[in-house]
Amino acid sequence: MKLAIVGATGAVGHELLKVLEGSRLPIDELQLYASPRSAGTQLPFRGENLTVQAMPEGAIPADVILASAGGSISLEMAPKWVAGGSVVIDNSSAFRYDPSVPLVVPEVNGAVALEHQGIIANPNCTTAIAAVAVYPIHQRYGVRRMIVSTYQATSGAGQKGIEELQEQTRQELAGESYTPAAFAHPIAFNVIPHIDAFQDNGYTKEEMKVVWETRKIFGDESLQVSCTAVRIPTFRTHAEAITLELERPATPQEVRELLSGAAGVEVRDDVTEKVYPMPLTATGKYDVEVGRIRQSLVFDGGIELFVAGDQLLKGAALNAVQIAEYLYEQGALK
Amino acid sequence: MKLAIVGATGAVGHELLKVLEGSRLPIDELQLYASPRSAGTQLPFRGENLTVQAMPEGAIPADVILASAGGSISLEMAPKWVAGGSVVIDNSSAFRYDPSVPLVVPEVNGAVALEHQGIIANPNCTTAIAAVAVYPIHQRYGVRRMIVSTYQATSGAGQKGIEELQEQTRQELAGESYTPAAFAHPIAFNVIPHIDAFQDNGYTKEEMKVVWETRKIFGDESLQVSCTAVRIPTFRTHAEAITLELERPATPQEVRELLSGAAGVEVRDDVTEKVYPMPLTATGKYDVEVGRIRQSLVFDGGIELFVAGDQLLKGAALNAVQIAEYLYEQGALK
Repeated sequence: MKLAIVGATGAVGHELLKVLEGSRLPIDELQLYASPRSAGTQLPFRGENLTVQAMPEGAIPADVILASAGGSISLEMAPKWVAGGSVVIDNSSAFRYDPSVPLVVPEVNGAVALEHQGIIANPNCTTAIAAVAVYPIHQRYGVRRMIVSTYQATSGAGQKGIEELQEQTRQELAGESYTPAAFAHPIAFNVIPHIDAFQDNGYTKEEMKVVWETRKIFGDESLQVSCTAVRIPTFRTHAEAITLELERPATPQEVRELLSGAAGVEVRDDVTEKVYPMPLTATGKYDVEVGRIRQSLVFDGGIELFVAGDQLLKGAALNAVQIAEYLYEQGALK
Repeated sequence: MKLAIVGATGAVGHELLKVLEGSRLPIDELQLYASPRSAGTQLPFRGENLTVQAMPEGAIPADVILASAGGSISLEMAPKWVAGGSVVIDNSSAFRYDPSVPLVVPEVNGAVALEHQGIIANPNCTTAIAAVAVYPIHQRYGVRRMIVSTYQATSGAGQKGIEELQEQTRQELAGESYTPAAFAHPIAFNVIPHIDAFQDNGYTKEEMKVVWETRKIFGDESLQVSCTAVRIPTFRTHAEAITLELERPATPQEVRELLSGAAGVEVRDDVTEKVYPMPLTATGKYDVEVGRIRQSLVFDGGIELFVAGDQLLKGAALNAVQIAEYLYEQGALK
C-alpha cells in the first residue's frame, strides 16, 4: 500500500509518522509532503530517512492520503487527490459537515467510513476524545443532554502553541515582557475561554464543533450538547468535565464496568488511590483516560465524569490511522 | 474599633491586611496573630509596622476577629473568642454547615449576618465567586439546575501552592526531577481533578462545598447544583464555567444588562474585542468578572456563562472584610 502524509512537518504530521511506525497497515511506500519551505527535510521512519517533498499541484500517487495541512489546502486539493484515485482522510474541518462525507471515530461509527466517496473526515480533537468515552454510555442508557467543559492544551494550536507556552512561561518567571502571537492573550499561568472564532450565537467554533460533530458521529440529531472550550497552560492532552442526562438511569458502578470493556478507553477511577485522568498520565497514550465517574447531582440517574485524551493521538493522528486500518481490514483498500 | 487577624502571615492574611488598608471601617487598633514560629514578624499597615504575636490561649481583646488559620484552630478557639465578647468572621469550613451560623456573601444575603450568635462563616472561595454572578439571575429567573466546572489556581492551597507551581515549573522547563508536596500530583503543565478530600459519593469536599454552600447562601434547598473542581497551573484567581437551567426563560442580553447593574460583578463580555473573564485580568480585582454569556444549548431559555474571580479577595479576604463592613454599617458592631 502506498501512503502519503500531507503536512508531514507539523505537530500532527510528527505524530502520524510515529503512529504509522507501529501500524499493522502493509505500507510499501510512505510519501511525505509539506510546504515548499519544508521540502528537503529528512524525517525518520522505520529505520530509513524519508525526504519531505513540496506538495504537487495535482494528484498524489498514493492509495491513502492523510491530510493535515489546514482547511484551505484540504478544500482546494482533496477533490484533485480523489480524482487521482486516492482515498483522503482529512484532519481539517473542511469537509466534516458535508452530508456526503463520513465523519468517523472507528470505535463509534467505523462502518460509515465504508460509504465514503473519496473523502473521510477526521473529527475535532475534543469531540473524538469525548466520543469514545460517551458513546458506550449513549448506546446503553441513551444520552439526552451532554454538558462539556474543556481544559485544552496549547499543542491544539500546533507547534507554535507549544513553543509559545514554553517561552512565555520562562519569560513570566524571569519577569520579562512578551507579546502573545499563537493565542489571543498570554497563556502562561492564564486561562483563555476562547478557541477558534466566535459564532453569531456567542459560542466559539470549537464549542460548536463538539455540538455538531458529536451528533453526526453518534448519528443522533436529537442529542442536546453544550460546550465551554477553554485553553489552559498545559502542553499536551485535552481534559474534559462531562455531565450527562440519560434516558435510562445508570449507576457509577455500571458505567465503570461498561467502560472497562470499551475499545479505546482506559478507566482510571480509584479516588482512594488518587487515580483519575490527568494530562500527566494520558499524554502519549492511545486510550482515552476516563474517571471521576459519579452519580450526577442535577440529573436523576445521570452520570458525571472526567476524561483526558492525547489530542494529537486520539484527537488527530491516531484516529486518522485507525480509519485507514479499519478500511484495510474491511477489504475496502487496495 | 479593635480588629484582630488570626493567621496574619498566610496567603489570606496577607490579603486581609491589604483589603483593611483601604477599608471604610474605623480601625483604632489592628492586632495580628499567627503561630508561635511567625511571632515577631513585622507587617506593614497604614504606614506603621505591626508585630505579629503568637495567638493567645483564650480570648482576644478585639471587637472583630478575622480568622484564617484553618478549620481545627477555628473549631477550638472561636467559641472562646466569642465568650470573650468578640464577633468572629471565620474563613474556614468549620462552622459553615452549622444551622446556627450565618454563611454570608454580603451582595447576596448580608441581612442574615445580623442574626449571628458570635460566629459568621465566610464561604468557600469557588462558591463565593459563583454566588455573586449567579444570585441576580436566580432572583429574577429562578435557577433550577446549576452545573459548574472549575479552573482553580494553586494559591487556593495557600502560599505553599504558589511556591510549588513556581518551583516545579522551573524544574520542568530545566528537565529536573521533583516530588510533589502541596498537591497529590505534579501541577506544572498538568491538570488535577482533585481538590480537598473525596467523599463517599465520589465527589470531593470542594465540589460538595459548592453544592451545600450555594444552597445555604441562596436560602434555597431545592436548588440542584453539581460541580467538578479542577486544579490547574495558574497562580491566582479561580475561573468557572457555569450552565444554568432557569424557571423563567432569559436572553443573554437581559442577563448582560441585569449583571451590569449587580454589586460585586464586572461584566466583561465583548467577544468581538476578545473581552471575556480571565485570571490575567481578574487577579487583584474586587469584582468578579463575568462573560461568555450565551443561551444554553441544552436548557431552553437557560444561560451559560464564564466567571473569573480573585479567590484570595472575593473568595476569602475581601468577603470577610465586607461582612465586617456590613455589620458596622447596620450598627451591629461597636
